[in-house]
Amino acid sequence: MDHPDLALVSLQQVLEALVDPVRRMVVAQLVRKGEDMSCGTFEAPVALSTLTHHFNVLREAGVIRQYYVGTMKMNTLRTGEMEERFPGLLPAVIAACVTESGAGAA
Amino acid sequence: MDHPDLALVSLQQVLEALVDPVRRMVVAQLVRKGEDMSCGTFEAPVALSTLTHHFNVLREAGVIRQYYVGTMKMNTLRTGEMEERFPGLLPAVIAACVTESGAGAA
Repeated sequence: MDHPDLALVSLQQVLEALVDPVRRMVVAQLVRKGEDMSCGTFEAPVALSTLTHHFNVLREAGVIRQYYVGTMKMNTLRTGEMEERFPGLLPAVIAACVTESGAGAA
Repeated sequence: MDHPDLALVSLQQVLEALVDPVRRMVVAQLVRKGEDMSCGTFEAPVALSTLTHHFNVLREAGVIRQYYVGTMKMNTLRTGEMEERFPGLLPAVIAACVTESGAGAA
Protein backbone atom coordinates (compact mmCIF):
# COMPACT_ATOMS: atom_id res chain seq x y z
CA MET A 1 0.00 0.00 0.00
CA ASP A 2 1.25 3.42 -0.94
CA HIS A 3 1.52 6.13 1.69
CA PRO A 4 2.27 9.63 0.43
CA ASP A 5 5.01 11.85 1.74
CA LEU A 6 2.94 14.51 3.50
CA ALA A 7 5.11 17.24 1.99
CA LEU A 8 3.50 16.29 -1.32
CA VAL A 9 -0.08 16.29 -0.05
CA SER A 10 -2.04 19.48 -0.76
CA LEU A 11 -4.56 21.21 1.48
CA GLN A 12 -7.06 20.58 -1.32
CA GLN A 13 -6.54 16.82 -1.04
CA VAL A 14 -6.88 16.78 2.74
CA LEU A 15 -10.04 18.91 2.70
CA GLU A 16 -11.55 16.69 0.00
CA ALA A 17 -10.82 13.70 2.25
CA LEU A 18 -12.33 15.33 5.33
CA VAL A 19 -15.40 16.83 3.65
CA ASP A 20 -17.03 13.39 3.53
CA PRO A 21 -19.01 12.62 6.70
CA VAL A 22 -18.29 8.88 6.61
CA ARG A 23 -14.56 9.59 6.38
CA ARG A 24 -14.84 11.97 9.32
CA MET A 25 -16.63 9.19 11.24
CA VAL A 26 -13.63 6.93 10.58
CA VAL A 27 -11.22 9.58 11.85
CA ALA A 28 -13.37 10.31 14.91
CA GLN A 29 -13.62 6.60 15.79
CA LEU A 30 -9.84 6.21 15.61
CA VAL A 31 -9.48 9.17 17.97
CA ARG A 32 -12.15 7.92 20.36
CA LYS A 33 -10.74 4.40 20.41
CA GLY A 34 -7.24 5.71 21.01
CA GLU A 35 -5.64 2.74 19.29
CA ASP A 36 -5.26 1.30 15.81
CA MET A 37 -8.39 -0.36 14.47
CA SER A 38 -8.93 -3.05 11.84
CA CYS A 39 -11.16 -2.17 8.90
CA GLY A 40 -13.95 -4.49 10.01
CA THR A 41 -14.39 -2.88 13.43
CA PHE A 42 -15.59 0.58 12.37
CA GLU A 43 -19.21 1.56 12.74
CA ALA A 44 -20.44 3.21 9.56
CA PRO A 45 -23.74 3.37 7.68
CA VAL A 46 -22.21 1.97 4.49
CA ALA A 47 -21.17 -1.40 3.08
CA LEU A 48 -17.65 -2.62 3.83
CA SER A 49 -16.73 -2.26 0.16
CA THR A 50 -17.73 1.41 0.26
CA LEU A 51 -15.84 1.82 3.49
CA THR A 52 -12.76 0.37 1.80
CA HIS A 53 -12.97 3.18 -0.75
CA HIS A 54 -13.13 5.73 2.08
CA PHE A 55 -10.06 4.18 3.75
CA ASN A 56 -8.21 4.49 0.43
CA VAL A 57 -9.08 8.19 0.11
CA LEU A 58 -7.94 8.85 3.67
CA ARG A 59 -4.70 6.95 3.08
CA GLU A 60 -3.98 8.72 -0.21
CA ALA A 61 -4.54 12.09 1.51
CA GLY A 62 -2.05 11.13 4.22
CA VAL A 63 -4.62 11.13 7.01
CA ILE A 64 -4.28 7.44 7.91
CA ARG A 65 -1.63 4.78 7.62
CA GLN A 66 -2.67 1.18 6.87
CA TYR A 67 -0.77 -2.01 7.56
CA TYR A 68 -1.47 -5.70 7.76
CA VAL A 69 -1.42 -7.88 10.84
CA GLY A 70 -1.84 -11.33 9.30
CA THR A 71 -4.89 -10.89 7.07
CA MET A 72 -6.29 -8.01 9.13
CA LYS A 73 -5.85 -4.54 7.66
CA MET A 74 -5.18 -2.07 10.45
CA ASN A 75 -5.67 1.71 10.42
CA THR A 76 -3.87 4.41 12.33
CA LEU A 77 -4.01 8.20 12.18
CA ARG A 78 -0.87 10.00 10.97
CA THR A 79 -1.53 12.60 13.66
CA GLY A 80 2.01 13.84 14.19
CA GLU A 81 2.89 14.13 10.52
CA MET A 82 -0.41 15.85 9.71
CA GLU A 83 0.20 18.30 12.54
CA GLU A 84 3.58 19.15 11.13
CA ARG A 85 2.19 19.62 7.60
CA PHE A 86 -1.12 21.34 8.45
CA PRO A 87 -0.85 22.61 12.03
CA GLY A 88 -4.12 22.59 13.91
CA LEU A 89 -6.25 21.32 11.04
CA LEU A 90 -6.94 17.74 12.11
CA PRO A 91 -7.46 18.66 15.81
CA ALA A 92 -9.95 21.39 14.80
CA VAL A 93 -11.93 19.03 12.58
CA ILE A 94 -11.88 16.30 15.22
CA ALA A 95 -12.99 18.72 17.94
CA ALA A 96 -15.90 19.85 15.77
CA CYS A 97 -16.87 16.22 15.05
CA VAL A 98 -16.89 15.41 18.74
CA THR A 99 -18.98 18.49 19.55
CA GLU A 100 -21.50 17.67 16.84
CA SER A 101 -21.76 13.97 17.66
CA GLY A 102 -22.33 14.97 21.28
CA ALA A 103 -25.20 17.11 19.99
CA GLY A 104 -26.66 14.18 18.06
CA ALA A 105 -25.24 14.81 14.57
CA ALA A 106 -22.44 12.92 12.82
CA MET B 1 -29.12 39.19 2.82
CA ASP B 2 -29.49 36.31 5.22
CA HIS B 3 -26.72 35.51 7.65
CA PRO B 4 -27.08 32.25 9.57
CA ASP B 5 -26.78 31.93 13.31
CA LEU B 6 -23.51 30.01 13.56
CA ALA B 7 -25.02 27.71 16.16
CA LEU B 8 -27.12 26.33 13.30
CA VAL B 9 -24.24 25.90 10.85
CA SER B 10 -22.84 22.36 10.63
CA LEU B 11 -19.22 21.32 10.22
CA GLN B 12 -20.35 19.70 6.97
CA GLN B 13 -21.51 23.04 5.61
CA VAL B 14 -18.32 24.86 6.58
CA LEU B 15 -16.07 22.16 5.11
CA GLU B 16 -18.12 22.17 1.88
CA ALA B 17 -17.58 25.93 1.73
CA LEU B 18 -13.85 25.68 2.37
CA VAL B 19 -13.15 22.71 0.09
CA ASP B 20 -13.42 24.97 -2.96
CA PRO B 21 -10.09 26.58 -3.87
CA VAL B 22 -11.65 29.81 -5.17
CA ARG B 23 -13.57 30.23 -1.93
CA ARG B 24 -10.36 29.68 0.03
CA MET B 25 -8.71 32.36 -2.15
CA VAL B 26 -11.48 34.77 -1.10
CA VAL B 27 -10.92 33.97 2.57
CA ALA B 28 -7.14 34.25 2.23
CA GLN B 29 -7.41 37.62 0.48
CA LEU B 30 -9.63 38.98 3.25
CA VAL B 31 -7.05 37.86 5.79
CA ARG B 32 -4.13 39.28 3.84
CA LYS B 33 -5.87 42.59 3.22
CA GLY B 34 -6.80 42.87 6.88
CA GLU B 35 -9.91 44.92 6.10
CA ASP B 36 -13.34 44.48 4.53
CA MET B 37 -13.27 44.20 0.75
CA SER B 38 -15.89 44.91 -1.90
CA CYS B 39 -16.83 42.05 -4.23
CA GLY B 40 -15.17 43.67 -7.24
CA THR B 41 -11.74 43.92 -5.66
CA PHE B 42 -10.93 40.23 -5.24
CA GLU B 43 -8.46 38.53 -7.54
CA ALA B 44 -9.86 35.23 -8.75
CA PRO B 45 -9.59 33.18 -11.94
CA VAL B 46 -13.37 33.18 -12.49
CA ALA B 47 -16.06 35.54 -13.81
CA LEU B 48 -17.65 37.94 -11.35
CA SER B 49 -20.97 36.10 -11.66
CA THR B 50 -19.25 32.87 -10.59
CA LEU B 51 -17.53 34.71 -7.79
CA THR B 52 -20.93 35.97 -6.62
CA HIS B 53 -22.02 32.36 -6.23
CA HIS B 54 -18.91 31.65 -4.16
CA PHE B 55 -19.62 34.64 -1.90
CA ASN B 56 -23.16 33.30 -1.37
CA VAL B 57 -21.85 29.88 -0.34
CA LEU B 58 -19.40 31.45 2.10
CA ARG B 59 -22.12 33.68 3.54
CA GLU B 60 -24.60 30.80 3.91
CA ALA B 61 -21.93 28.77 5.72
CA GLY B 62 -21.34 31.63 8.14
CA VAL B 63 -17.77 32.24 7.00
CA ILE B 64 -18.33 35.80 5.75
CA ARG B 65 -20.74 38.63 6.42
CA GLN B 66 -21.87 40.86 3.56
CA TYR B 67 -23.27 44.37 3.72
CA TYR B 68 -23.85 47.27 1.38
CA VAL B 69 -22.05 50.59 1.36
CA GLY B 70 -24.09 52.48 -1.21
CA THR B 71 -24.17 50.12 -4.17
CA MET B 72 -20.94 48.38 -3.17
CA LYS B 73 -21.29 44.96 -1.57
CA MET B 74 -18.67 44.55 1.13
CA ASN B 75 -17.31 41.30 2.61
CA THR B 76 -15.91 40.60 6.04
CA LEU B 77 -14.82 37.41 7.76
CA ARG B 78 -16.88 36.29 10.76
CA THR B 79 -13.62 35.31 12.43
CA GLY B 80 -14.67 35.63 16.06
CA GLU B 81 -17.98 33.83 15.68
CA MET B 82 -16.39 31.03 13.63
CA GLU B 83 -13.71 30.63 16.28
CA GLU B 84 -16.35 30.24 18.94
CA ARG B 85 -18.31 27.69 16.87
CA PHE B 86 -15.39 25.72 15.37
CA PRO B 87 -12.29 26.55 17.42
CA GLY B 88 -9.09 26.54 15.42
CA LEU B 89 -10.66 25.50 12.12
CA LEU B 90 -10.51 28.74 10.15
CA PRO B 91 -7.01 29.68 11.42
CA ALA B 92 -5.70 26.21 10.46
CA VAL B 93 -7.15 26.42 6.94
CA ILE B 94 -5.88 29.99 6.50
CA ALA B 95 -2.40 29.04 7.73
CA ALA B 96 -2.29 26.16 5.25
CA CYS B 97 -3.44 28.46 2.42
CA VAL B 98 -0.71 30.96 3.23
CA THR B 99 1.93 28.22 3.38
CA GLU B 100 0.82 26.78 0.04
CA SER B 101 0.54 30.12 -1.76
CA GLY B 102 4.02 30.93 -0.48
CA ALA B 103 5.14 27.68 -2.09
CA GLY B 104 3.52 28.67 -5.39
CA ALA B 105 0.20 26.78 -5.15
CA ALA B 106 -3.25 28.26 -4.45
